[in-house]
Amino acid sequence: MVTMFADRMENTKKSFIREILKVTQQPEIISFAGGLPDPALFPSEELAAAAGKVMSDDAVNVLQYSTTEGYLPLREFIAQRYLEKNGLKISPSEILITNGSQQSLDLIGKVFLNKGDRVVIESPGYLGAIQSFSIFEPQFQEIPLLDDGIDVDLLDKTLDECDAKFFYTVPTFQNPSGITYSKEKREAVANILEKHGVVCVEDNAYGELRFAGEEVPTIRNYLDNTILMGSFSKIIAPGLRLGWICANKDIMEKLLVVKQAADLHSNYLSQRIICQYLMDSDVDSHIAKIKDVYGSRRDHMINMMARYFPENIIYTKPEGGMFVWVTLPESVSSMDLFNLAIKKNVAFVPGSPFYITEGAGDNTLRLNFSNSNQSEIEDGIKRLAACIEKLTF
Amino acid sequence: MVTMFADRMENTKKSFIREILKVTQQPEIISFAGGLPDPALFPSEELAAAAGKVMSDDAVNVLQYSTTEGYLPLREFIAQRYLEKNGLKISPSEILITNGSQQSLDLIGKVFLNKGDRVVIESPGYLGAIQSFSIFEPQFQEIPLLDDGIDVDLLDKTLDECDAKFFYTVPTFQNPSGITYSKEKREAVANILEKHGVVCVEDNAYGELRFAGEEVPTIRNYLDNTILMGSFSKIIAPGLRLGWICANKDIMEKLLVVKQAADLHSNYLSQRIICQYLMDSDVDSHIAKIKDVYGSRRDHMINMMARYFPENIIYTKPEGGMFVWVTLPESVSSMDLFNLAIKKNVAFVPGSPFYITEGAGDNTLRLNFSNSNQSEIEDGIKRLAACIEKLTF
Repeated sequence: MVTMFADRMENTKKSFIREILKVTQQPEIISFAGGLPDPALFPSEELAAAAGKVMSDDAVNVLQYSTTEGYLPLREFIAQRYLEKNGLKISPSEILITNGSQQSLDLIGKVFLNKGDRVVIESPGYLGAIQSFSIFEPQFQEIPLLDDGIDVDLLDKTLDECDAKFFYTVPTFQNPSGITYSKEKREAVANILEKHGVVCVEDNAYGELRFAGEEVPTIRNYLDNTILMGSFSKIIAPGLRLGWICANKDIMEKLLVVKQAADLHSNYLSQRIICQYLMDSDVDSHIAKIKDVYGSRRDHMINMMARYFPENIIYTKPEGGMFVWVTLPESVSSMDLFNLAIKKNVAFVPGSPFYITEGAGDNTLRLNFSNSNQSEIEDGIKRLAACIEKLTF
Repeated sequence: MVTMFADRMENTKKSFIREILKVTQQPEIISFAGGLPDPALFPSEELAAAAGKVMSDDAVNVLQYSTTEGYLPLREFIAQRYLEKNGLKISPSEILITNGSQQSLDLIGKVFLNKGDRVVIESPGYLGAIQSFSIFEPQFQEIPLLDDGIDVDLLDKTLDECDAKFFYTVPTFQNPSGITYSKEKREAVANILEKHGVVCVEDNAYGELRFAGEEVPTIRNYLDNTILMGSFSKIIAPGLRLGWICANKDIMEKLLVVKQAADLHSNYLSQRIICQYLMDSDVDSHIAKIKDVYGSRRDHMINMMARYFPENIIYTKPEGGMFVWVTLPESVSSMDLFNLAIKKNVAFVPGSPFYITEGAGDNTLRLNFSNSNQSEIEDGIKRLAACIEKLTF
């Protein structure tokens, strides 16, 4: 008799973060664990107005089956924005609307990955991507992240030694590390991938949330052979589950086949609401508001860590996004810290799930600053500092 | 160098129906090709009111990330309805909200299918399921549909000869054939699957749309080891992309893992809108209205075929759902008929894509009656009859 479930289910565990989030939902807990945008910043009234408008103007179409590619005016908006913000010429026909970046990852995995294929990934890497790709049973090749992006010499060497299907990267305000690739690193990565004929999958979910430093080009600006991913979750609202993939014609043709088999098309009401919102409102001033708030929260978290953390604790100082990455002394386990901290009603995500190699990153952790206010940040960091001291002395 | 795309992409073609639908979108064409509900029957005003309510009452939660399982009150409603309508005791924890039945198929394929695994399927079978499962490269075993369900002796013999992961069936108002399994056949299928320890995947997307004959139990009523699929697309609105899977705890655990990797959770705004609509409106009287309209359209289509079609044309007389299945004389190709008919501005779906075996069903075709009014049905059938006569004489 055949075994009941597919082999791929052996490699996939329930998300560790999801399990942690269940623990941290009690109101008394200060949680730096999630990756949630602050709901107070959702443009709720504008979205409610947009929903009212599309339902009263065009309910019959809004509620019917629609095209797999996604609502054309929405794809046109995205294409136009790439041109204006990034100098990228992308045709609306090279854009597919998805149910958020998570589905983009699933579709890309489906189109590219045979069992055993190599995927090059940052270390630490985005957990959602590791989970999504794991379903297709690839072998991951980890490349360590340095302060300004991955170790490019190691990328080159790795691609010399093995064929890879693609390199997956979050080059801007990376999840989990908060690191942003320098302009030079982006160009170097593009050149190396070009030389080896390897596709870049560039996940730019946080790119619009810069509150310090200078804008840098996307990797797509240097390498045509890039699949660029975007999302409305962080700049508008995640509950509407909308993101997109930009890819060239050959890849898009395959993505459309798997998208159709996956769910025919993305939620059409949400596509129409977001498109209406983008037409009627000034999304740039809305994003500016988000950046203001998140920027001051990051500043506050960094200041509080500087004030309360022991001196030998290292942390990133992200120029945007939602996360800070903390490195404890090698001997200190962030799982031990988690167990101690949760008793003091403060939560975070231990770092090891972000690594492929078993046991790696045991002394690291991720802190989210987008969904806690100033006093929660101060209290939480203070409590965390006390727990760290307890473990290090 | 490795090939660019995954092997699974070799087996998956763009949907033939999707290509046909592009041809048939001109307004002058009478189309029996699609599988669209009639948008005039969408409860648009009620859904607009529900959208307004959830956005004004609870925007902050409606727009935030939510749980993978789906909105609990919605799952409770579905569980309660199964109890009342089908006498099935299903816990809300055994229900997962998906992006419509198409995603349910994708998730089930992911959880169960290794390359080369056997899937038993009806012949003709639902094309969306064939597409979804094909991504996971199974071997299909076709079992012919008779007037009252599949050939159960052949099902038994097939399962004697090979291990199968599951039997996929649309036992009520099947797509494409319109056939409904008798009570006796359901019980027989359940017994055979039980004997062989094979899971039943019961797709019940149309079950609520009965306008003739007597209600029959679900296969789930006879076989616990059944994964039951449902959808709001045909009874409320498909653009909201919401369906569900009922499965036991062990299977649900796996489904949650793949759902999370696929897109974290289904569109939360739509879940809240549909749940609000179900609380505030009488969905049963709404469904009664749909059944009235579709029932009289089916009657009209059957009457017009009886009046205009040559006598040697056979067709099903479905007791519900949206489709009639037509069998031409063996020598007549429905592709030839399609090419002729499209010149006369009438469209349908040729039958062969619904068969796994190359060339099978070449003399069959599917007609949709839910989205054409009475005069379109008369005109369309008349034109089609003229084309058939041209080909058969």
